[in-house]
Amino acid sequence: MLIEKNGKQFIIQLDPDQRLQTHRGVLEHRDLIGLEWGQKVSTHMGHDFLMLQPSMRDLLLHTKRLSQIIYPKEIGYILLRLSIGPGTPVVEAGTGSGALTTAFAWAVGPRGTVYSYDRRQDMLELAARNLERVGLRDRVELNHLDIEAGFSERGIGSLFLDLPHAHRYLRQAHAAMANGGILGVILPTVNQVSRFLSELEGALFALPEVCEIMLRFYKPNPQRLRPTDRMVAHTGYLLFARAVSG
Amino acid sequence: MLIEKNGKQFIIQLDPDQRLQTHRGVLEHRDLIGLEWGQKVSTHMGHDFLMLQPSMRDLLLHTKRLSQIIYPKEIGYILLRLSIGPGTPVVEAGTGSGALTTAFAWAVGPRGTVYSYDRRQDMLELAARNLERVGLRDRVELNHLDIEAGFSERGIGSLFLDLPHAHRYLRQAHAAMANGGILGVILPTVNQVSRFLSELEGALFALPEVCEIMLRFYKPNPQRLRPTDRMVAHTGYLLFARAVSG
Amino acid sequence: MLIEKNGKQFIIQLDPDQRLQTHRGVLEHRDLIGLEWGQKVSTHMGHDFLMLQPSMRDLLLHTKRLSQIIYPKEIGYILLRLSIGPGTPVVEAGTGSGALTTAFAWAVGPRGTVYSYDRRQDMLELAARNLERVGLRDRVELNHLDIEAGFSERGIGSLFLDLPHAHRYLRQAHAAMANGGILGVILPTVNQVSRFLSELEGALFALPEVCEIMLRFYKPNPQRLRPTDRMVAHTGYLLFARAVSG
Amino acid sequence: MLIEKNGKQFIIQLDPDQRLQTHRGVLEHRDLIGLEWGQKVSTHMGHDFLMLQPSMRDLLLHTKRLSQIIYPKEIGYILLRLSIGPGTPVVEAGTGSGALTTAFAWAVGPRGTVYSYDRRQDMLELAARNLERVGLRDRVELNHLDIEAGFSERGIGSLFLDLPHAHRYLRQAHAAMANGGILGVILPTVNQVSRFLSELEGALFALPEVCEIMLRFYKPNPQRLRPTDRMVAHTGYLLFARAVSG
Repeated sequence: MLIEKNGKQFIIQLDPDQRLQTHRGVLEHRDLIGLEWGQKVSTHMGHDFLMLQPSMRDLLLHTKRLSQIIYPKEIGYILLRLSIGPGTPVVEAGTGSGALTTAFAWAVGPRGTVYSYDRRQDMLELAARNLERVGLRDRVELNHLDIEAGFSERGIGSLFLDLPHAHRYLRQAHAAMANGGILGVILPTVNQVSRFLSELEGALFALPEVCEIMLRFYKPNPQRLRPTDRMVAHTGYLLFARAVSG
Repeated sequence: MLIEKNGKQFIIQLDPDQRLQTHRGVLEHRDLIGLEWGQKVSTHMGHDFLMLQPSMRDLLLHTKRLSQIIYPKEIGYILLRLSIGPGTPVVEAGTGSGALTTAFAWAVGPRGTVYSYDRRQDMLELAARNLERVGLRDRVELNHLDIEAGFSERGIGSLFLDLPHAHRYLRQAHAAMANGGILGVILPTVNQVSRFLSELEGALFALPEVCEIMLRFYKPNPQRLRPTDRMVAHTGYLLFARAVSG
Repeated sequence: MLIEKNGKQFIIQLDPDQRLQTHRGVLEHRDLIGLEWGQKVSTHMGHDFLMLQPSMRDLLLHTKRLSQIIYPKEIGYILLRLSIGPGTPVVEAGTGSGALTTAFAWAVGPRGTVYSYDRRQDMLELAARNLERVGLRDRVELNHLDIEAGFSERGIGSLFLDLPHAHRYLRQAHAAMANGGILGVILPTVNQVSRFLSELEGALFALPEVCEIMLRFYKPNPQRLRPTDRMVAHTGYLLFARAVSG
Repeated sequence: MLIEKNGKQFIIQLDPDQRLQTHRGVLEHRDLIGLEWGQKVSTHMGHDFLMLQPSMRDLLLHTKRLSQIIYPKEIGYILLRLSIGPGTPVVEAGTGSGALTTAFAWAVGPRGTVYSYDRRQDMLELAARNLERVGLRDRVELNHLDIEAGFSERGIGSLFLDLPHAHRYLRQAHAAMANGGILGVILPTVNQVSRFLSELEGALFALPEVCEIMLRFYKPNPQRLRPTDRMVAHTGYLLFARAVSG
């Protein structure tokens, strides 16, 4: 990741035959290879960039997208809420552009697996490329399947739905889950939350929880500390519940 | 974890010789051993409890505390922001009651290590017990040291400070960190944030970011969906920066 | 208004034959009559109270209630949004405990009138007492009527609904309103907001606006400035629209 | 006020010799004079505009500005908090572009007066024009004075400061205020709030209160109800206190 003083960022994979073109000048990849993280590098026009290893947050914000956004503020909470840690098997639908898939694959580590479903081939291909780019492709099983027909997994403790009609797949989700397993859903509108909760009442899920997360940044000026002028007002509502036995 | 219909929770470690006394009746541990997760169990007074495996979030909310609280809403974001995943070595000061230590130990997995510092012996003992209780004690190195004298680690990529005078330890933090490593801090007051940012200006850190996270729950009634009446208004301000070379 | 150091408040009407009993001692009303605002007075136990003229906000927070609360944070915005100022005729339903009625009566001044409707006699009596207590009873016409049958007024520019089924009275509201008049509604649940917006689509109203207001207090300690620990998370959603001609 | 379907607004004063040029076509003022509010009018290109009487909120949002913004969300609360209603004398410094002055002048009605101070002649001229435009100029006394030398008024119950160094004028404010009078201040940064509170401790003011107001809009689609994507994150912190006697 190369960062300009004004905050503009580039995340690139170094290749000795390539160059990065910016409006502040050119950087030859070969000049960067072997440099230490945290150093300043200069373009041919003399502009400085800071070279840093991208954090998981940085990678997520740079995921190439065709679909709705999930922000890091939600992802961190989802990981904790679904207990997605090293070795955890996770099921997810839909894959979308793979931002959440990337976070799950990162959190489960080399011994975990993410089973991800999408019925759109273009999405799966985009997700595959995004995962490849960050070196996490081998932890993810991408399934080109409509979950209407059910998931192949059983006894799963952490299952996440990011689908327009998530309320239609409660039966399929329950079948894939362990007793006591945690279901998570993200839904953009209140109408979807209301419909999902209605369906949940008749299904074998307990302890429903609905929440939203707001993240407000501050201008980091010690003498004039104050929030930024504008902020993200909404990405989606998060919904969690526990699978229970009949 | 045993949960009553009204939401009251007990997190216990099963021991054939013990019993759980609740105001809704008694549960013999030996009757629970061997049962499947997600099942209902009844007290001698006929009250039902749901038996669930606690999630990382549940464990964090039940951490026994002597000090300030960090909520799961902050912890999830910190994990992502500091890229704390499987295998990551993490340095933290102070240990406090070990809630954050627990989350870090969980996220780094069996191959990671958390190096945690506190100058109060009572805090370290409480943290040790809390870590023991959730089976994560062996992933944490608890150091009874004042970080004024510096950290023993070098080349660390993720370092977190949760201390009243965090701004005094920037030199020590930088010495322990890799170039490009990410520093995180939680500070309860705006005065502390302002002072920390002032110190940061003269130290070898770049890209400061200050934010706060608000989590609002909803009453999960599909026909009368609305936020809860009250919410947590503040836990702390989060501050992040990248260590850079001179 | 008498305020203790710890913030506890009493709003009383002075009467030479009465006394105020507090757990910090007794204050004889006759000793307070004639004193200037902003002075300290002592109980027989030697505890100090500060004597202040209550602001409109203070009076609203002390309104005796049988029903749902509207907080000052909403009321101020409603006054501005409905252009309720000196001389404005305002129509309101239902009256409830009269908190909003009080604010409207205060804002319209001695030359304005608030036409308030409720079908519950007990509510109207409570509202009458609350208005009496703050000397604004004569600016309000309290109507014991079900607005199903319509409002008596015509050509009104500012009309506010605070009713469980507000969406049923759009026709009646429009009939009472001037072209271009502003309708305001407060609704506690998202389901009600959604239903109201649906009805609005078929009615002669334009420019619908939905919002919510959050007010966060800070602990006023200059050296340790930070938000309070908890806050009100929700009172209601506000909805505004303009009456238009066919 | 003329509003396009997409929300674009024009607030104009009708003059038979003028025309409104929009990118959707031209409207001759003379064709609009005498029309009723709430009607649709068409440009020469056949585009419809809705003709509405602007509310106080609309006028405030259209105030021409040279300086920092106060939003209606703050103004409504300030009016209520400072008890600024019909007939109330109000003192304010600085005048700025006159948005708050306009709201005060509107709320105090024809029998109230706003005493406003600014040391910049250009600001006072802009404010005068803005007040003129909405017909409230005669309720405001604009003073071209540095309040360092004090206010001319005495016994004022509602005094508002919107100045970069508001903490320097506590003595002057107190001298102008009645015992028990309410002081209000808006300050953009936490450093200013902290400094103001420090000064307040040594001055004759009681019951300090610090707060901030967040207003979140929703997309008014009944079937897909959700907050807007972005919102205003900050305008300023509000601070209130009561003047007390020595």
